[in-house]
Amino acid sequence: MRRTVLLLALAVALGGPLHAQHATRIGDAAVATANQLREQALKDDTGWKVVESLTTEVGPRLAGSEADARAVAWAVAKFKELGYDKVWTEPVTFPKWVRRSEHGEVLGRSAQNLVLTALGGSVGGTVEGEVVRFPDLAALQAAPDGSLKGKIAFVDYQMQRKQDGSDYRNGGGIRWGGPSVAIQKGASGFLMRSAGTDTTRSAHTGNTRYAEGLKPIPAAALSTIDAAQLARLVAIGPTRVRLALDCGFDGEYTSQNVIGEITGNARPDEIVLLGGHLDSWDLGTGAIDDGAGVAITMATGALLKPMKPRRSIRVVAFSNEEQGLFGGRAYAEKHAGEVARHVIVSESDFGADRIYQFDSSAAKLQPQAMAQMSSALAPLGIKWMPGAGGPESEMEVMAGLGMAWASLGHDGTKYFDLHHTNEDTLDKIDPQQLAQNVAAYVVFSWLASQADGDFGSAPKPPEAAAH
Amino acid sequence: MRRTVLLLALAVALGGPLHAQHATRIGDAAVATANQLREQALKDDTGWKVVESLTTEVGPRLAGSEADARAVAWAVAKFKELGYDKVWTEPVTFPKWVRRSEHGEVLGRSAQNLVLTALGGSVGGTVEGEVVRFPDLAALQAAPDGSLKGKIAFVDYQMQRKQDGSDYRNGGGIRWGGPSVAIQKGASGFLMRSAGTDTTRSAHTGNTRYAEGLKPIPAAALSTIDAAQLARLVAIGPTRVRLALDCGFDGEYTSQNVIGEITGNARPDEIVLLGGHLDSWDLGTGAIDDGAGVAITMATGALLKPMKPRRSIRVVAFSNEEQGLFGGRAYAEKHAGEVARHVIVSESDFGADRIYQFDSSAAKLQPQAMAQMSSALAPLGIKWMPGAGGPESEMEVMAGLGMAWASLGHDGTKYFDLHHTNEDTLDKIDPQQLAQNVAAYVVFSWLASQADGDFGSAPKPPEAAAH
Repeated sequence: MRRTVLLLALAVALGGPLHAQHATRIGDAAVATANQLREQALKDDTGWKVVESLTTEVGPRLAGSEADARAVAWAVAKFKELGYDKVWTEPVTFPKWVRRSEHGEVLGRSAQNLVLTALGGSVGGTVEGEVVRFPDLAALQAAPDGSLKGKIAFVDYQMQRKQDGSDYRNGGGIRWGGPSVAIQKGASGFLMRSAGTDTTRSAHTGNTRYAEGLKPIPAAALSTIDAAQLARLVAIGPTRVRLALDCGFDGEYTSQNVIGEITGNARPDEIVLLGGHLDSWDLGTGAIDDGAGVAITMATGALLKPMKPRRSIRVVAFSNEEQGLFGGRAYAEKHAGEVARHVIVSESDFGADRIYQFDSSAAKLQPQAMAQMSSALAPLGIKWMPGAGGPESEMEVMAGLGMAWASLGHDGTKYFDLHHTNEDTLDKIDPQQLAQNVAAYVVFSWLASQADGDFGSAPKPPEAAAH
Repeated sequence: MRRTVLLLALAVALGGPLHAQHATRIGDAAVATANQLREQALKDDTGWKVVESLTTEVGPRLAGSEADARAVAWAVAKFKELGYDKVWTEPVTFPKWVRRSEHGEVLGRSAQNLVLTALGGSVGGTVEGEVVRFPDLAALQAAPDGSLKGKIAFVDYQMQRKQDGSDYRNGGGIRWGGPSVAIQKGASGFLMRSAGTDTTRSAHTGNTRYAEGLKPIPAAALSTIDAAQLARLVAIGPTRVRLALDCGFDGEYTSQNVIGEITGNARPDEIVLLGGHLDSWDLGTGAIDDGAGVAITMATGALLKPMKPRRSIRVVAFSNEEQGLFGGRAYAEKHAGEVARHVIVSESDFGADRIYQFDSSAAKLQPQAMAQMSSALAPLGIKWMPGAGGPESEMEVMAGLGMAWASLGHDGTKYFDLHHTNEDTLDKIDPQQLAQNVAAYVVFSWLASQADGDFGSAPKPPEAAAH
C-alpha cells in the first residue's frame, strides 16, 4: 500500500503514467529496424510457401489421425529448413475421436439427402424421427423436459456476419451446448444449422461436449442450405429424418507440440512466445484454421533470425487445439514455472485476412511501449484498440497463468464462411494479406524482443489463475 | 426456282423483305396487351412458387430414380393447379444409370481424400495408379497409344467464364470425349478438372459416353480445388491415386414427358411450344438446371390463360434431358407429323439469371414480326441479336424436324459455377430475375400466339433433317 501511494505521487509529480519507474522502453534503433523489417516482410513469400507446403503435402490433419504424425514430422523438418536454432517436440495426449461416415436424409413424401457433418466428439448411431424445429437455443431450452421423446431436435439459428466474429458466441454456443439441452428434453438426435455465415452446401463441424451424466445422442450440423430446405419442409408438414453417424472416441493418442526457437542474442532465457495450431478438422486442408497461423508465426521467426533478436523468439505449432486446447494445456503445464520468462505471448488463430486491430494486456501497464509498437504497426492499417482484443486460443491458457499477451486481430468478416468446412483450403488465402499478417507479427515480435523492460508477465496466485 | 425469282422481283419492286407477301404481322391490340402482360409478370411470383415447390418437395430428381416418378406426379398436379386446360403424359424409355457411391484419395506420402463425382454414364470400378496430368484434351490426344498403361489420365483444363457460356464447348467436350481418348492411350481410369468456373469443392457431374468398341474405364470429375491440389502434388513428384466408383447402368426405365396446354381460342390446333426439363442431376435440387426452365414456362402458360390466346400454348416438362435428350427425342418422334402445327418453339434451359438476348430462326423470314417482338422485349433489357442464339436442348431436336425456334438467352456468366453440382439449389435463384425471365416468355409467347401468319415451321426433307 505504501509503495502504491509513493508511486502514485511520483507519477503525478512527473506527469507520467503509473509504474513510470518501470516503464518499458524501445530504443530508436529497434524502431528503425522494425520499420525496415515491415517493408521487407510485405515483399516476402515465406509465409505463403509454408502454408502451401502444409496444406498440400500434409493436407487435412485431424488430431490423432494418420496425418497427425505426418504433420508433426513436417513441422520439425520445416522449422529446421527455416533455420531455427533449436527444434524439439513435447508430448500431448488426448482421447482420439474418429469420423468414419455420416449420412442424413429426409424420409417419405419428399425423400432426399441432407448434407450434414457430425460434430466433433459426437457419438455414432442411427436414429429416425420427426424433426422439431427451434429458431434458437433459448427456444429449445424453453421446451418442456421430455417433450422431444423419440424426436430429432433441430436448432435453426443463422449466425450473423461480424468483423470480429462475435456472433460465434451464439453459433458456437449452440454447437457446444445444444446436444445436452436436446437430451434433457428427451430427443434421440440433434441437428443444427451450421455455425457459419456462408450460403453453401458445406457443413461446419467443430467440437461439442455432452454434460456429465447424460446419455449422448448423435449430433450433426446441416449446411445452411440444407437447414433452410429442412425448415421449408417442416413448415409444409410433419417431416421425418434419418441420421446415421459412424464416429466416436477410440482410445488415446499421443501427439506432439512442435517447437522452434531463434535463440536470443542478449537474453536467451527470455521468450517472446508465438504460435498457431498444427491440427485441423478433417473436412478441409486447414488453410485458414490454422495453417495460416502456423505459417505466419514460423515465417516471423525465420525473418527475424538474421537480425539477431535480443530475446528468444519461440514458435509453437500446437497439437490438437480443435478438440479442447490439448496442446496449449500441455505446454502450460510443462512451463508453468517459467511464466515471467515468457515476456509476452501471441497466437494467430483467426484466419489470414488483413490484421486490423492491436491490443495487449500491457495496455495500461506499458502505454509508452505499446504506443511505440502501435506506431510501427500503423502503416499496415492496424489500429490500436485497447479492450477490443484478447489472447487467442492456446494463449488464453498462458494468460491464465499470468503471461502478458498481445493480440493482432484479423478481419473476421469472411472467416465463418469457411471455418471448419471442406472449403477451408489454400485458395482462400490471399498471398498479399498473408504477407501483411507476417509483417505485423514481425514488427510486434521484433520490438518485444528488443524492449528494455517487461510487459507484466508474472505468475498468478493459484486462486487468481483459477478464474 | 421460278417461284423464287418471282418472289425476289416482287420484293425488290415493293422495297420490302423477301417473302413479303407472307409477312407475318402482329396487331396493335396484341402489342398493347403484351406490354401490359410484361409489367404484370414482373410483379408476379408464380414462377418462384413453382420452382420453390419443385426443388423443395421433390428435391433432386435423377432420371430413373425413385424421385423421377414423384417429379412426374408433381408436374401433373402443378399443371392442373395452375389451371391448364389439358394435362397429359407421354412415355419416355431410357437406360437407367445409378450412382451408389464414389470415392477418391491420394495414396502415400500426402494421403488425403479428393472430392470428385462420377460422370453420368460412367462404369463403376476401383482403380489405383500413378496420375499423369494433361493441361487439355489436345495434350491427352497427343500422347502415344498405350503410353498410359496402368495409369490414371488427368485432364486439368480450367473452363473459362463467358456470358454466353461458350467455353462449355471445351469443358463439356473433355467430359464427353475424354474417357474414350484415355482408353485409347491405355489408361485404367479418367479424371478431369470439373467443367466449371467456380473455385469451390463442388464437383460437376454430367454425361459422358464411351466410343463403341472400347472397354469402359471409371471416369470422374474433381472439384476445381481438388484438381489444383492434385496438380500441385503431381508437380512435387509421382502421385498415386485410388478411384472407387460404384455406379453404372441397371436396366431400363420408363418415365413421362408431362404436358400442359392452354387451348387456343381461335386456332387451337396451332401450337406455341415451350419447355424445360423435369429431370436433374442428383447432387443438387436442380434449381437452375432446370427447375427454373420448368417454372418459367409453366408460369407463362398460367399468366396467359386469362388472356385467351388465339393459338394453343403447350408447355412440356421433358423427361431425362441430362442423359441424352430422351424426352425431346420421344416428343419429336411422336409429333413428327405435326411440324407445321408447331408454329414456333422455345426452351428455357440455361438458368435463371436475366435474359439479355433474343434470337430466332425467323430472323430473316419475318423481320417485321421479330422487330415487333424485340420492341416489346426491349424494356426488359433484352437485345435483338440475330445469329447469337440457337434452339436450346430439346428444341434442337424440334428444330431438326423443321420447327421454327426462338431463343431467349440467359446471362450465363455464373451458370457454370453451379451447373451439375450440389450447389444447384433454390437459394441461387433471384426471384426478381426469375420474374424477368417469365415476363420475357410471356411477351414472346403471347405475340407468337396472336400473330397473323407463321414463322417458317415446315417439315424438312429426310436428308436435310439428318444434318
